[in-house]
Amino acid sequence: MKVWLIGAYGIVSTTAMVGAKALERGIVDKTGLVSELPPFKKISEYVPLKFEFGGHDIRPLPTAYDAIMEHWESNRHFDREILDAVGDELKKIKACKGTALNCGEGIRELGRVETLEDEGLTLREIVDRIEKDIKGFADDETVVINVASTEPLPKFSEKYHTTIEGFEEMLDNDVKEYATASMLYAYVALKLGLPYGNFTPSVGSSLPALKQLAEEKGVPHAGNDGKTGETLVKTTLAPMFAYRNLKILGWMSYNILGDYDGKVLSHRENKESKVISKDKVLEKIMGYSPYTITEIEYFPSLVDNKTAFDFIHFQGFLGTKMKFYFIWDGIDAIVAAPLILDIARFLLFAKKKGISGVVKEMAFFFKSPMETDVINTHEQFVMLKDWFEKLAEV
Amino acid sequence: MKVWLIGAYGIVSTTAMVGAKALERGIVDKTGLVSELPPFKKISEYVPLKFEFGGHDIRPLPTAYDAIMEHWESNRHFDREILDAVGDELKKIKACKGTALNCGEGIRELGRVETLEDEGLTLREIVDRIEKDIKGFADDETVVINVASTEPLPKFSEKYHTTIEGFEEMLDNDVKEYATASMLYAYVALKLGLPYGNFTPSVGSSLPALKQLAEEKGVPHAGNDGKTGETLVKTTLAPMFAYRNLKILGWMSYNILGDYDGKVLSHRENKESKVISKDKVLEKIMGYSPYTITEIEYFPSLVDNKTAFDFIHFQGFLGTKMKFYFIWDGIDAIVAAPLILDIARFLLFAKKKGISGVVKEMAFFFKSPMETDVINTHEQFVMLKDWFEKLAEV
Amino acid sequence: MKVWLIGAYGIVSTTAMVGAKALERGIVDKTGLVSELPPFKKISEYVPLKFEFGGHDIRPLPTAYDAIMEHWESNRHFDREILDAVGDELKKIKACKGTALNCGEGIRELGRVETLEDEGLTLREIVDRIEKDIKGFADDETVVINVASTEPLPKFSEKYHTTIEGFEEMLDNDVKEYATASMLYAYVALKLGLPYGNFTPSVGSSLPALKQLAEEKGVPHAGNDGKTGETLVKTTLAPMFAYRNLKILGWMSYNILGDYDGKVLSHRENKESKVISKDKVLEKIMGYSPYTITEIEYFPSLVDNKTAFDFIHFQGFLGTKMKFYFIWDGIDAIVAAPLILDIARFLLFAKKKGISGVVKEMAFFFKSPMETDVINTHEQFVMLKDWFEKLAEV
Amino acid sequence: MKVWLIGAYGIVSTTAMVGAKALERGIVDKTGLVSELPPFKKISEYVPLKFEFGGHDIRPLPTAYDAIMEHWESNRHFDREILDAVGDELKKIKACKGTALNCGEGIRELGRVETLEDEGLTLREIVDRIEKDIKGFADDETVVINVASTEPLPKFSEKYHTTIEGFEEMLDNDVKEYATASMLYAYVALKLGLPYGNFTPSVGSSLPALKQLAEEKGVPHAGNDGKTGETLVKTTLAPMFAYRNLKILGWMSYNILGDYDGKVLSHRENKESKVISKDKVLEKIMGYSPYTITEIEYFPSLVDNKTAFDFIHFQGFLGTKMKFYFIWDGIDAIVAAPLILDIARFLLFAKKKGISGVVKEMAFFFKSPMETDVINTHEQFVMLKDWFEKLAEV
Repeated sequence: MKVWLIGAYGIVSTTAMVGAKALERGIVDKTGLVSELPPFKKISEYVPLKFEFGGHDIRPLPTAYDAIMEHWESNRHFDREILDAVGDELKKIKACKGTALNCGEGIRELGRVETLEDEGLTLREIVDRIEKDIKGFADDETVVINVASTEPLPKFSEKYHTTIEGFEEMLDNDVKEYATASMLYAYVALKLGLPYGNFTPSVGSSLPALKQLAEEKGVPHAGNDGKTGETLVKTTLAPMFAYRNLKILGWMSYNILGDYDGKVLSHRENKESKVISKDKVLEKIMGYSPYTITEIEYFPSLVDNKTAFDFIHFQGFLGTKMKFYFIWDGIDAIVAAPLILDIARFLLFAKKKGISGVVKEMAFFFKSPMETDVINTHEQFVMLKDWFEKLAEV
Repeated sequence: MKVWLIGAYGIVSTTAMVGAKALERGIVDKTGLVSELPPFKKISEYVPLKFEFGGHDIRPLPTAYDAIMEHWESNRHFDREILDAVGDELKKIKACKGTALNCGEGIRELGRVETLEDEGLTLREIVDRIEKDIKGFADDETVVINVASTEPLPKFSEKYHTTIEGFEEMLDNDVKEYATASMLYAYVALKLGLPYGNFTPSVGSSLPALKQLAEEKGVPHAGNDGKTGETLVKTTLAPMFAYRNLKILGWMSYNILGDYDGKVLSHRENKESKVISKDKVLEKIMGYSPYTITEIEYFPSLVDNKTAFDFIHFQGFLGTKMKFYFIWDGIDAIVAAPLILDIARFLLFAKKKGISGVVKEMAFFFKSPMETDVINTHEQFVMLKDWFEKLAEV
Repeated sequence: MKVWLIGAYGIVSTTAMVGAKALERGIVDKTGLVSELPPFKKISEYVPLKFEFGGHDIRPLPTAYDAIMEHWESNRHFDREILDAVGDELKKIKACKGTALNCGEGIRELGRVETLEDEGLTLREIVDRIEKDIKGFADDETVVINVASTEPLPKFSEKYHTTIEGFEEMLDNDVKEYATASMLYAYVALKLGLPYGNFTPSVGSSLPALKQLAEEKGVPHAGNDGKTGETLVKTTLAPMFAYRNLKILGWMSYNILGDYDGKVLSHRENKESKVISKDKVLEKIMGYSPYTITEIEYFPSLVDNKTAFDFIHFQGFLGTKMKFYFIWDGIDAIVAAPLILDIARFLLFAKKKGISGVVKEMAFFFKSPMETDVINTHEQFVMLKDWFEKLAEV
Repeated sequence: MKVWLIGAYGIVSTTAMVGAKALERGIVDKTGLVSELPPFKKISEYVPLKFEFGGHDIRPLPTAYDAIMEHWESNRHFDREILDAVGDELKKIKACKGTALNCGEGIRELGRVETLEDEGLTLREIVDRIEKDIKGFADDETVVINVASTEPLPKFSEKYHTTIEGFEEMLDNDVKEYATASMLYAYVALKLGLPYGNFTPSVGSSLPALKQLAEEKGVPHAGNDGKTGETLVKTTLAPMFAYRNLKILGWMSYNILGDYDGKVLSHRENKESKVISKDKVLEKIMGYSPYTITEIEYFPSLVDNKTAFDFIHFQGFLGTKMKFYFIWDGIDAIVAAPLILDIARFLLFAKKKGISGVVKEMAFFFKSPMETDVINTHEQFVMLKDWFEKLAEV
């Protein structure tokens, strides 16, 4: 299948490319790939584990190889031998110039960037360019995935955001104030009938107007915000307290990371979207709102080695207080990259099975899954498995 | 309902007594009680939250009040006001002299003990005395629960352990070598038609001969080994690694505690049963056997404040190693005590619904549940809920 | 000796009172008291371990007993038996109404407060009242210690803050804008010839004008900001990295606590003084400025159980990165209270030995010691010991 | 200078070789080297930072390059570029066949080994061979350092171990029962007038007979057991509790590591020496013996990434218990390797300054320093600095 990546030169995208190519050559195993677990065995009949990549980015690098070299030099997040083996493949992948419209100040941390809006294009011209780029790559088995940096929360407009007619009007009238990059990409993908996955907390296809478009076009889409580190653990662990009727008095989540991601998130407006996405999960699992702290801070020397410190203060029988601490010491791109491949496969599988609109059964992959309150990782896994088994007639 | 506790003077038993009485008076809330969660609402129609207690013990204390005072002085594990409010109730509870047959050297750590076998009784005389004691207390709504210290693994005998006839022969011929205290108690409970719960890793009703007895008498029973601290977390968290196809390279579990429990477990033969019980769980969840360390050590100043240090080394996409650490800082008796009340209620509920033999759907409460491989805490909770809802016609 | 406490109803002050009285009765041991270590044995010849207490506060409680009961109920930070034994003594201690001038919004978290400025007094009238209150209590063996909540950084005034003449002018002209509570108390103490210790990061006697006053009056004073939890560990541990030539890439310090202290510090302006005080220490020890995060957040259920999470990322031989984590789970008042008694004793000892001005050798007790760069806990201890031994002619 | 390494093919030795050569080429900085700190600046006038290496080993590898390649492949403990740059230098280093006499079962974990005793040599013949090997390499500026695997505690003999005459008699009469490898190497080094450093807890030069030899020959020596990870932190941190008069109720130290070191130490008799070396330190710092747990366990996937979990339970004012946790996540060879170079330099400096016998001022580098009770890391650093400054006339 083919995957078009928004933010193609980021560490998650390029690590996914390296992994996909290394899998094809049989030099790494399938660890980390959910879609390769036994319950999903039949997916390979619909979507073999073989990928071609294209995408947009706003950093003017020659190829994806230049991007991964930069990420690898500062992270050394996998063995150099793997990179050497697949380097030639990445040299063939060149991202088209993208948009970063209303992506906030944080985006400036990426260094030199070149965007379509810098060329003075109108909204309609931007989406036309994006459409042209994607059309030049896509076939019937193509999925678009957003892995770009987190945008600030957009200004909401009843007029332009709730119907596809309003959205088109916004484009035609070039009302840039209410448009953000992630909406524009999602619009093009859905318009072209390409399944769309949103791995970020940016608005993407969750805009009511775009949900309508997906239904009309009969395209499946899923999101938002890949569930990778601390939130994955939180949504796995919090149910334990619920099952045992233990009361959570407070839950502290303190995340530190470096890298572009850490830099962008150190900007308050960009961080806001992320924290909201992370922070709602406890309420949904516990049925009440414990006191919580959810913070993300920049810590340059860690680069992509995202580290999370969690402290759970809880009350048991007879009112007695007890404590639980955990530390997650993970490499964000390593946890995220295989999920890109998984999401792409499950979306294409859904399309082939005639599913359209939000695939809420893919909640397992996201921090803020659309149109479902199933946040418990275990329930999400069971839901994904049941959905797949039913569709695949396992 | 009535609950007969083997090890009635232990910290778990006496804390359960305090809690039950405090609940009756409405001075504490229902935190920690699984049976009071919304899905189990209907249980109160069958088994109201009201308990009378009796039991056996080998420590010659005047009443349960003397026992809890000793535990409370060294632990201060709940507010003194609660104890003062229910003290009179505990003064009315007096344990009968019990047996500690083949309970190992560890038992000597309990201080002065008095046992039935010290009186020179034969096996048959011991079980007769136990039977007489229990009969003097029990009614139709009585459950027996084993909360005594962990026994060493018993010497297995094909002849005496596999059929109830062989077991009776062992009793008649006074073959003490193959009998342990927990078997004798379980035998009497089941013979009297009383549901039996085994909160310890000791053999109890899991002996084939006694499973046969339970079936013949139509009595429900459940066990083994209450899932309280570190294993509860492990069986909640390990599935996350499985769902995400992350490979566990090694899992270290290091537990420290003081108290009688810590002292008894510091004896190698007593500890062995416990470590085996804790150690098998990962294999059942992951489908392979990661390298594991599972240790329990004595740390006197913690008393019952059981602390567990876990380290999980895991491998993700592209072979990259990552790390997860957790610290459980709990009060063992506070986590365990409400489960005693829960187990008693669910067993009596099962009896009323005509269930006999091992209630494997109660796996949720145990580290080594009998006759099931469902170890994943989440699957266990769903199984318990489904079982209950079906029987209670929710 | 006698101790006059600014913030007499706070948890640190009242816990110090309980401890002092319990020590007198011999119902607790000397754990936690630095001045009772063998090298300082001779201090009891100058300052016996016997204390009388008075003080100012802005919360209108009847006596110190009411204050400690409130703190104890929410913290249970020592055995109730101790409180019962000394309760009568605390009922005799009644704080005078104090000032909270320019103490920031945070102070409103304390609940109902009554201050001298609310009576409409001028600066001069406020200091006169404070002077009158202290004079009514103090003798030749009295020390004043500031344990009030942290003030915001004051607005600096060349005119009013650099000389005692300027300071007096500020008082006479009632220039409230440049005065804060801690200055006024320190001014009165020094003017009366009473040694002054500043256990908070508030400005207190560190104002140049007041340092001049201390010299002129021949009074010893010390501060600032009691070194209790995370900073104590940091200044003990950081030297290890320096001695081994290991490079600190980043040091994260994340502190959570509840209580009045946590509430007050959750106000940005009040927190600022504290974070600056904590944050400077690494630079002084390492000789360069590693990347640091130093945060304090409110976590209500912990009350005074201050918990700190530290992460140190460091680089060793061949550029390899390594990690160190620590968690401090302490009770702030329990660590701080004995230091109040220690500081009082050492200050009175200094006075008896004719020392005047800043006693920089008492740096051991403070996060931001005045007039010294000795921040390394070990060097501070050696400095204190050497100073004492020389003066006491050990 | 020249360094002769016992255990030349181990990860510490080969990492030291890589580091020394990389320093010469200027491709790494001096991080990790104590001797390069400002107070020791003058050492380069006596011992420039330039090393040649030789040594003994029992693994029959062609050169040190083969050894480091094996260590590097499983650890990736520094950048591959460094290894590539100095590889040719390591290909020139070939270890002579050594002895593993009475080194315990653990040694068999190293894989194929070849020893002098396997050739059927007598003790005298073994030391002659060792002497011949070292003589062929050494000059006036050569130091011998023991970095071989930990030996079991040797059987003590009054007759053979207390005087050099007895020791020679043991050699002449080939009484192998009382000899261990580390003694034989230390004997040869001291006999040849070469300073000797013992980086392991093996007996080495700490045998009374060999101390006598060192004095007679006028040779400086130092040891035992390099202070690298958890003990370094413990001896830095424990003084804090002492200075503040906080009582340690218990200290748990749980260490896990893989690699040859972990494998060898998983043998009870080899581990014993190590645990004793680690376990004594607290008593010396605190002045009493807190309850301690000190364990080392094998955890294969960590390889040389030694991880230590420490828990300190301590009591403060009013008897209140508090907690401190730390996790050390270090790479053992990276911490140890620069110390090999430091010890070599300081020993050669000592020799040049005419020092003979145990250099107790080098305690800073060791867990069980000979002939001193100075265990506090800070006191050790001050002692080293004072000693150096006096001798170097800084």
